[in-house]
Amino acid sequence: MARVIDINCDMGESFGRWTLGNDAALMPYITSANIACGWHAGDPAVMRQTVELAVAHGVGIGAHVGFPDLLGFGRRRIDVTPQEVYDYTLYQAGALQAFAQAAGARLQHVKPHGAFYVMCSQNEELCEALCRAIKALGNGIALVMMGDIAPRVAASVGIPMAREGYIDLNYNRQGQLVLERRKQAWDPEEVARRAVELVLHGRIPTIEGETLQAEVETICIHGDAPNAPEIAQRVRQRLEEAGVVVRPLGAGMTATA
Amino acid sequence: MARVIDINCDMGESFGRWTLGNDAALMPYITSANIACGWHAGDPAVMRQTVELAVAHGVGIGAHVGFPDLLGFGRRRIDVTPQEVYDYTLYQAGALQAFAQAAGARLQHVKPHGAFYVMCSQNEELCEALCRAIKALGNGIALVMMGDIAPRVAASVGIPMAREGYIDLNYNRQGQLVLERRKQAWDPEEVARRAVELVLHGRIPTIEGETLQAEVETICIHGDAPNAPEIAQRVRQRLEEAGVVVRPLGAGMTATA
Amino acid sequence: MARVIDINCDMGESFGRWTLGNDAALMPYITSANIACGWHAGDPAVMRQTVELAVAHGVGIGAHVGFPDLLGFGRRRIDVTPQEVYDYTLYQAGALQAFAQAAGARLQHVKPHGAFYVMCSQNEELCEALCRAIKALGNGIALVMMGDIAPRVAASVGIPMAREGYIDLNYNRQGQLVLERRKQAWDPEEVARRAVELVLHGRIPTIEGETLQAEVETICIHGDAPNAPEIAQRVRQRLEEAGVVVRPLGAGMTATA
Amino acid sequence: MARVIDINCDMGESFGRWTLGNDAALMPYITSANIACGWHAGDPAVMRQTVELAVAHGVGIGAHVGFPDLLGFGRRRIDVTPQEVYDYTLYQAGALQAFAQAAGARLQHVKPHGAFYVMCSQNEELCEALCRAIKALGNGIALVMMGDIAPRVAASVGIPMAREGYIDLNYNRQGQLVLERRKQAWDPEEVARRAVELVLHGRIPTIEGETLQAEVETICIHGDAPNAPEIAQRVRQRLEEAGVVVRPLGAGMTATA
Repeated sequence: MARVIDINCDMGESFGRWTLGNDAALMPYITSANIACGWHAGDPAVMRQTVELAVAHGVGIGAHVGFPDLLGFGRRRIDVTPQEVYDYTLYQAGALQAFAQAAGARLQHVKPHGAFYVMCSQNEELCEALCRAIKALGNGIALVMMGDIAPRVAASVGIPMAREGYIDLNYNRQGQLVLERRKQAWDPEEVARRAVELVLHGRIPTIEGETLQAEVETICIHGDAPNAPEIAQRVRQRLEEAGVVVRPLGAGMTATA
Repeated sequence: MARVIDINCDMGESFGRWTLGNDAALMPYITSANIACGWHAGDPAVMRQTVELAVAHGVGIGAHVGFPDLLGFGRRRIDVTPQEVYDYTLYQAGALQAFAQAAGARLQHVKPHGAFYVMCSQNEELCEALCRAIKALGNGIALVMMGDIAPRVAASVGIPMAREGYIDLNYNRQGQLVLERRKQAWDPEEVARRAVELVLHGRIPTIEGETLQAEVETICIHGDAPNAPEIAQRVRQRLEEAGVVVRPLGAGMTATA
Repeated sequence: MARVIDINCDMGESFGRWTLGNDAALMPYITSANIACGWHAGDPAVMRQTVELAVAHGVGIGAHVGFPDLLGFGRRRIDVTPQEVYDYTLYQAGALQAFAQAAGARLQHVKPHGAFYVMCSQNEELCEALCRAIKALGNGIALVMMGDIAPRVAASVGIPMAREGYIDLNYNRQGQLVLERRKQAWDPEEVARRAVELVLHGRIPTIEGETLQAEVETICIHGDAPNAPEIAQRVRQRLEEAGVVVRPLGAGMTATA
Repeated sequence: MARVIDINCDMGESFGRWTLGNDAALMPYITSANIACGWHAGDPAVMRQTVELAVAHGVGIGAHVGFPDLLGFGRRRIDVTPQEVYDYTLYQAGALQAFAQAAGARLQHVKPHGAFYVMCSQNEELCEALCRAIKALGNGIALVMMGDIAPRVAASVGIPMAREGYIDLNYNRQGQLVLERRKQAWDPEEVARRAVELVLHGRIPTIEGETLQAEVETICIHGDAPNAPEIAQRVRQRLEEAGVVVRPLGAGMTATA
């Protein structure tokens, strides 16, 4: 049986008069879009346009839910309660769901953004609130996340889950991402090699020179690298040359629910 | 066949640390709640709590969509395009729909708020954008509105429509509401008399001493009058004593779709 | 020489359509107002009205600067940098300063609010950024704060500082406040006794039954207690009966600059 | 006596993660900066950086005050009262004033932005509220505006006023600007010719082929044209070659106060 993988990417991060990212150039190469919902980025017009662009390319639609912090782009920790995580997720993903439905599509997944992502991936209570909100949104909507806590919590709440890996960022030996203050341009061939290594062999190199073992159903590509479209194109090409089927989540999701 | 009517009321207008209105006291007497969606009032926590309160009382759930103007409570005209009306409605009503679904209910109607209401009721293009957004939200969701334009546009777009009448505000002979700067306490018996007159006989008195003829499926009670719960209770009591069936929209909607 | 003290209170916490607090009833009894600047509460209209009310009562005008978190009333920690503390303070206090000047007054002090207060009082770098912003605002503007860090940092930056004590909240033996989830009504006589004890003898009782020693130039009264005006009135009365001069900051500030 | 003129340009329109405009490239050629104050664009960090950049180039600092409409970039009319115009101006300009003072500079002028500009230039009451707010900010701060109403109202309120002309937009014969949906690239030499014609001879060509007569103290260059820096550079060069002294407002302001 052929190995399958999903490629996800943050999308729809423009706001009002301000343009960010290069959605139109990236969309042909990815299979799932994490679309900002107006709290850390995005606005209703951008959401509609991004959903329509995703539908036109057969790309899965995901709600990229974040903190109510436009000024900080959702990258600053805010001390929230589990109840707030639940309410904020339901609100944002519900709004995006309406745009998906208006475009004749459905919501495929929810992926938290920025500090919301980090906090939910590290705190079991917050993660559970997130999963319960996703469950309330309807059947079959998946959580996309990395780390040890999320798969366990998603299974216990009873929602599908897609574990994700990063190929254009370094990991340390603890399996944590080494964030870049401003996303750098990476060599597309190098990123593609990492993608193939991760998808086919479950291997992630660390900055200490060791190798982590990881099973993932989706890989994330950053849209804010200066050469992001080139990277995405090369990653997809090399994966398909290696016999990997690149397609939206669904078949690729672990059967946790 | 018994005459039926719906009683709608604005709800969920608290925000964060600030409390507004008396939702718990009013909910037992009304049959449809227009719930603020976080743009002119309301927040995700308030939305969840208000939806749950409505469900507990068998009250129909409506999205009270408004302008992105928390500071002005959505009461100031903002020059928006039809596309913005469409996007703003879909966003807000989609968010509320998720809370309705999480509570095991469904979205019954959409009612615009404040200046958004006035502008959509006066401008055919804006009204059409509003109706198209409601249609995109799913089958059977009704528009609640007054005026001549809305019924025609709703029928043409193909969505259900409930015409509304006001019983605690004065009309002039042009059929326009005479707004009060700050909602005054009205005599509950007087308001109840107006309600019975409107529902049974389709008659609305004007400040000029004449009588308008109007057919409505829902009557609106203002929740911000000092004695709002008393008014709501008396209106419902007098209607039921007169043999009127007071119940949520549905059977009461004109079959425009 | 008579002992002098300042009584400060949070003011101007209404926002748009939402009213909070009882400023008009409290203003006659206090001598310094911490006025919200539109980020966690307050808006330009409320700021203007509150400044004018303070001026009418000879009350000192302070900028109550907080996080950009209207939804959370500024009570949730947000991971900010020292540079952000500096920028946020300058922005908010600058805005309030304009209203003070328009009312023929000047800015007397800056007091951080909520989580902004807690973080600045615990972190030396954040506290220094706060003090540098206050210094940039002009000569003689004082920082109002509790804790060990602030007096030292204020002295090193070269701004006046008024140490504050709380009389309507409990302290633990570490000198930390025991916050109430929702401000309770306290016995006015009991609060007044604590005020006299603190101002005349520098003594604060702890919940463990011990006594802390503290020197303060201003005492804070919470405006959100159900009986706040009664408490403020009694505190002022008992202090003056004990020979204490109650007056705005100025003479009462430690000469750190 | 040599003819003097000021060149003003909108600056500091980035927000949080989003960058807009090319401030660093434009600043060397202009003499007055209209700096966004966080309501329609800009944030405290951007304000501080833009003020410092202006000071470094000897450019006059102006508050570009706008509507509370980040989503609409302040370009949509909002139905505001004169009191709101007053409050909004004082708030935003006060905030910017603090950054100017922190940089060792002072606020030179206030220029309304977008729909706020248009409404204040057309409505005498709104214009008067704007002028009163500027007067309250302190001595000598000028209003920058076009149209017939502003000079009269500024004189009556008693504040300095600089009339402005546009050289990279078309006028119609009524003296109104013909706005471009998206700012086009104009030929720098053509814009420079218009600048010289306006400054030396007070002549503005209309799209109907006629000529308007206008006296201005400042000319506005749009920073959002694709070739804005080149335009600004050429305009300044041709003006100086024609013997015009290009410098910040001050000497150039009409003595209305």
